[in-house]
Amino acid sequence: MLNIAVMGHGVVGSGVLEVFYKNRASMERKANKEMDIKYVLDLREFSDLPYADKFIKDFELIVNDPEISIVVEVMGGLDPAFTYVKRCLEAGKSVVTSNKELVAAKGAELLKVANEHDVNFFFEASVGGGIPIIRPLHACLVANEIDEIAGILNGTTNFILTKMIREQMSFTDALALAQKLGYAERNPAADVEGHDACRKICILASLAFGKHVYPDEVYTEGITELTLEDVEYAKNWGGVIKLIGRAKRLPDGKVAAMVSPAFVSSDSQLSSVDDVFNAVLVRGDATGDVVFYGKGAGKLPTASAVVADIVDAAKAEHSSTSLRWEDNPAHNTVTDYLDAEVSMYVRIGYDNFDKATKVIGDLFGEIKPIYRSGIDDEFAFISPVLTEREVSQKLEQVAEKGLQVLGKVRVLGY
Amino acid sequence: MLNIAVMGHGVVGSGVLEVFYKNRASMERKANKEMDIKYVLDLREFSDLPYADKFIKDFELIVNDPEISIVVEVMGGLDPAFTYVKRCLEAGKSVVTSNKELVAAKGAELLKVANEHDVNFFFEASVGGGIPIIRPLHACLVANEIDEIAGILNGTTNFILTKMIREQMSFTDALALAQKLGYAERNPAADVEGHDACRKICILASLAFGKHVYPDEVYTEGITELTLEDVEYAKNWGGVIKLIGRAKRLPDGKVAAMVSPAFVSSDSQLSSVDDVFNAVLVRGDATGDVVFYGKGAGKLPTASAVVADIVDAAKAEHSSTSLRWEDNPAHNTVTDYLDAEVSMYVRIGYDNFDKATKVIGDLFGEIKPIYRSGIDDEFAFISPVLTEREVSQKLEQVAEKGLQVLGKVRVLGY
Repeated sequence: MLNIAVMGHGVVGSGVLEVFYKNRASMERKANKEMDIKYVLDLREFSDLPYADKFIKDFELIVNDPEISIVVEVMGGLDPAFTYVKRCLEAGKSVVTSNKELVAAKGAELLKVANEHDVNFFFEASVGGGIPIIRPLHACLVANEIDEIAGILNGTTNFILTKMIREQMSFTDALALAQKLGYAERNPAADVEGHDACRKICILASLAFGKHVYPDEVYTEGITELTLEDVEYAKNWGGVIKLIGRAKRLPDGKVAAMVSPAFVSSDSQLSSVDDVFNAVLVRGDATGDVVFYGKGAGKLPTASAVVADIVDAAKAEHSSTSLRWEDNPAHNTVTDYLDAEVSMYVRIGYDNFDKATKVIGDLFGEIKPIYRSGIDDEFAFISPVLTEREVSQKLEQVAEKGLQVLGKVRVLGY
Repeated sequence: MLNIAVMGHGVVGSGVLEVFYKNRASMERKANKEMDIKYVLDLREFSDLPYADKFIKDFELIVNDPEISIVVEVMGGLDPAFTYVKRCLEAGKSVVTSNKELVAAKGAELLKVANEHDVNFFFEASVGGGIPIIRPLHACLVANEIDEIAGILNGTTNFILTKMIREQMSFTDALALAQKLGYAERNPAADVEGHDACRKICILASLAFGKHVYPDEVYTEGITELTLEDVEYAKNWGGVIKLIGRAKRLPDGKVAAMVSPAFVSSDSQLSSVDDVFNAVLVRGDATGDVVFYGKGAGKLPTASAVVADIVDAAKAEHSSTSLRWEDNPAHNTVTDYLDAEVSMYVRIGYDNFDKATKVIGDLFGEIKPIYRSGIDDEFAFISPVLTEREVSQKLEQVAEKGLQVLGKVRVLGY
């Protein structure tokens, strides 16, 4: 009998128990061993649940129980999750987690500890909820150099943007609706300011490029500054605005990475990813572009990813997989984002159209203005490809010459 | 040292050698053992290749060589591939194949032989080229009941349809272009008549539902009858026409499966899959809809899937995975397609509009006509959901009442 402990009985934790007991026979057949959940660690009381007798409040019972071989961490947060996970790995127990904050901050270290103790640290559920992405990406890597990853990694912001695009709802109203529907938290900062997407692109980039990419290395911009005017210009340009996390391998071994809103052309597979759905595009040198799409969050999708990891951990008992990447304590895997090349949508307010187009033409070369119908004191344009630094400098000069820079959004090239 | 034999040196076979030698170091690290390709079996001469010394013409050298532990079958076709693969499995060698015809016809039998001899039979490359789909689907199954699968599984027909949709090219011209570009064979029947897509949906359905679904059980309709008029009606309805292979689990354990052109709404993730790209939608009870998208064919994408399988086979040496499904020699897993429920696009030619709408209204209830601009002797409509049998009967009556049925295409519900 393989015994499992689940740490945390929130949304995902209770989902894990639900999916586990529903699919137990099939899991046991796949893993070729009997399995049960022995403990559920939570400080709260759940005395009316059918598995109430499994609840414990003391972590030491788990880490000191030699019968426990797999521990599921679905508490969230860094503390005490990190200490608990590390101690479990050191005690020779494999750990499965859905905790993106933990993996983004401590992935390299925990993978190393797991490897040293011949156990596994799996985290399929930390990115993309129920979309299989970590495992396929890891398998892809066998026969591919991954050149680039770009994804819609946060369902809350994608829901808000979809409402802005389809129903011309303002950011504030769309956020309020997302909160009402339970898609956004009361304090929505982690979502709308891009930090959640940042953690996820860090995990994907670390895995794809073999070196830990830390969230504090990645320039991160949320969607709070986006306006319905930007949305309209994007439409007139031929696309939509999405919050995109992306990472690219550079020739010198460094990584370019960023989270920001982006103009995405209607031709792109990412443009039609709406509502709370997520999608990840992986560009490999042999496979070309592969896209994984599905629900990026939610109790059952996330729990099903956790449960798939449990079975993998059960099958690989007493052996460590090749899943790992190098740490980089200097936090300098990612290059300065100001050196990145970018094509930028810029929205300009003017008094005199001829003067305005001359100023822009002198600074950016020939551009094609984009208009909003019925508006005669502004236009927008897409800049040629320049470094972020050059774009910023030119936009300063635009302001110095008396024009208003009313908005800017990067343009995604695929 | 783990020795590999590659049977077949066509497009995929030469790609396997290319990808293998390019990624050998990374593969060896992942599999944690040294690997080399010892033989390449092909009757042709390739004396100018750097690995010319590996070529052999006698299969017996492979099957009788105890040093060979993995055999890659990329010859295609059923004969002699089936005999060779079976003998290799019986000789205790794992087999990796890209041969969809073989897996669709003999998958259950070969998986059983592999299991009996504690080796593996892997076929990631048989569906979706470089898109990881077999492995994620197998992993998904641990914590999900798969209810339904639908996909754009053939790149050639998708290329042709894209040309018809975007450039109003006729089927004949688009096929000629596909042949010129090397996307379609001189004899394009397997692609345009849907047989290739049929094999792939059979493999996916067998894996998802646990019982072998044979191609001869699946009603298969190609794209040869589609006209530019149908394409235009689809556009006016709000979507596009795609060749869709689909399979659905029924409550009684049987399977509904079909390959046919289908109206796909612009809202669907499948509608924006263009050119030679493929996409597979998997509907699981816990994950919801997950879509895998990428290049469905081509030398390097397919070879990279084969190579990923080689590494998995190397890691799992002397053990058999849980990948398998039951055989069903009666070939009756799939229900009669005439019992399936369907909503149908129907194109009607008439002399008298009022009479025509009355006939259709009497038979189908209230319908909303779809028009093509400038045309006044025909219209189209989408039928309510009926069984295929009912639709056929009603369309016979339509013809008896003097109207012409100029075309019909099923409507995909997602």
